[in-house]
Amino acid sequence: MSELINRQYYLAKRPASVPTPEDVPFRDVPVAKPAAGEAIIRNMYISLDPAIRGWMSDVNNYIDPIAINDPIRSSVIGRVVKSNSDLVAEGDVVMSLGAWERYTTAPAAGMNKLDENSGIPLSNFLSVLGPTGLTALFGLMDVGKPKAGETVLVSAAAGAVGSIVGQIAKMQGCHVVGMAGSEEKCRWITDELGFDAAINYKTCGDYEAAIKAACPNGVDVYFDNVGGDILDAALMCLNRFSRVAVCGWISTYNDADAPGPKNLWQLVAESATIQGFVVLDYVERFGEGVGQLAEWLMAGKLQFKEEIIDDLDNVLPGFLKLFDGSNQGKLIIRIPE
Amino acid sequence: MSELINRQYYLAKRPASVPTPEDVPFRDVPVAKPAAGEAIIRNMYISLDPAIRGWMSDVNNYIDPIAINDPIRSSVIGRVVKSNSDLVAEGDVVMSLGAWERYTTAPAAGMNKLDENSGIPLSNFLSVLGPTGLTALFGLMDVGKPKAGETVLVSAAAGAVGSIVGQIAKMQGCHVVGMAGSEEKCRWITDELGFDAAINYKTCGDYEAAIKAACPNGVDVYFDNVGGDILDAALMCLNRFSRVAVCGWISTYNDADAPGPKNLWQLVAESATIQGFVVLDYVERFGEGVGQLAEWLMAGKLQFKEEIIDDLDNVLPGFLKLFDGSNQGKLIIRIPE
Repeated sequence: MSELINRQYYLAKRPASVPTPEDVPFRDVPVAKPAAGEAIIRNMYISLDPAIRGWMSDVNNYIDPIAINDPIRSSVIGRVVKSNSDLVAEGDVVMSLGAWERYTTAPAAGMNKLDENSGIPLSNFLSVLGPTGLTALFGLMDVGKPKAGETVLVSAAAGAVGSIVGQIAKMQGCHVVGMAGSEEKCRWITDELGFDAAINYKTCGDYEAAIKAACPNGVDVYFDNVGGDILDAALMCLNRFSRVAVCGWISTYNDADAPGPKNLWQLVAESATIQGFVVLDYVERFGEGVGQLAEWLMAGKLQFKEEIIDDLDNVLPGFLKLFDGSNQGKLIIRIPE
Repeated sequence: MSELINRQYYLAKRPASVPTPEDVPFRDVPVAKPAAGEAIIRNMYISLDPAIRGWMSDVNNYIDPIAINDPIRSSVIGRVVKSNSDLVAEGDVVMSLGAWERYTTAPAAGMNKLDENSGIPLSNFLSVLGPTGLTALFGLMDVGKPKAGETVLVSAAAGAVGSIVGQIAKMQGCHVVGMAGSEEKCRWITDELGFDAAINYKTCGDYEAAIKAACPNGVDVYFDNVGGDILDAALMCLNRFSRVAVCGWISTYNDADAPGPKNLWQLVAESATIQGFVVLDYVERFGEGVGQLAEWLMAGKLQFKEEIIDDLDNVLPGFLKLFDGSNQGKLIIRIPE
């Protein structure tokens, strides 16, 4: 195994704004030898998520920032090529916390075996049946707590998380409104996913007026993927006892000086709640959550998109699509064999 | 009754910052005649609360802003001098929504009779046994949800609400830290009320460092009376799954351009919750709450201060003590017979 060479994208310096190839260059290094209890996997899929941008910054977060010189942390799916653990064996396909790299060496205890013959494409375990779908499920149901007849507003509604949130909210009997960044995305969420209305935030003009027009009964749950001006506008549309579930604030990740929301007084005016969450809060319920998502998926009740990009060397330009909104659904890097 | 003249302090224009006598002048007008179901009370006590400053502004709020030319809305205790309702009779002492005025004409259905011979000073029904105590009780217990062993941080801790919050939190077995604006106030909350530590925010320097020093295990519940820089500092000290109960943001009421909290990302970093509330959310539980507060009071477990100022013509300078922190406990205007 000693001849295996690992191409790694690593954090050379913390990005001042949008990450550049100077911030995240690559290097070819020998694959780290697995310690006892560890295994090496050859990565097949790498998940690209907005949260990774947060980890590149030196701010307090739910997990440590990526250290300077460390590879860019990411969820991965790969095949075990060497194991120093009884938990996984050579040839197994597993999901693991890994990095933007060809090979990941990590504790086998943190790897979840996947059945590559289940008929479910492996990439789905990074999207609708993975952290993305679970974020939508637990964030909406446990943080947003929608009730039938309520109005649920979702930003980044054509995104990997938002598109699932809206469909689950529809299943709860809610009036569901999504905000997305193109006419094509808006059509997809209304015509294909069943959202009641869509707002093209790039052309709608005044956000608050657009939200009020699409949510004539106000907003009971706002599932916030973006923060910034859209959060401020949504705050002005909240109903009494409404809930804002904060998944992440992609609009602010590349701007360390982004101001705080100016309309937060609405919390007192409407006895409203803002709650942050991460999917890791629900790790003990992942099995339950995947089961629920799989049931809906098999019943034809959940649609989703994956944008799969070959190959590892496209990881940074692929990642940046999250920030200009040019991706179509869940972004995944595939590394062909 | 037609000869009764009412001195009223009213909203001539919305204050740009700290309310001035030009914003809130007085007028002497005939007392409004009571319609069917209404009564006139001769006010004995007027409650001065930070929330009133919010009602003077034309922002969305949990109740309508005070209209220009209307008297300044306030809770009052008074004696019925004329009743057009079976619910209250001449001579009854009642609490009501009233105004900064000598006489209030209001619906009897909104008046709560008080027993002036119970041995409890009437003013207490505006402080520890009134909206102030109930705000502390429900805000801490239902929004903050403290558990034994957790750390509870309270701002404006020597104030009417904060001082009750801290004492209730101590009864829950919490480590309780208060922030107040003078050494005297800090001594009062630690030496008399049993807070574990106090921070003099006027002399402590860096808020975040001071909070971290006084809360070595971090903050699980922050009962926020002030907003602004202290909220931002408290956000940086939050523990995972912590709760911020927002009672009001007195530091921002006189500054329409106050920026939003810049550290709100901490909600996601710590899966924390910020929830706004007003005591009116709990109106159906007022009886239960007053009973609980009275039980603690009679058991000697609750201490409180009232700063009672004579007379109606001191209402505006009295009110402004809330904003420079020169008041000592619950501010009440008394109008001697």
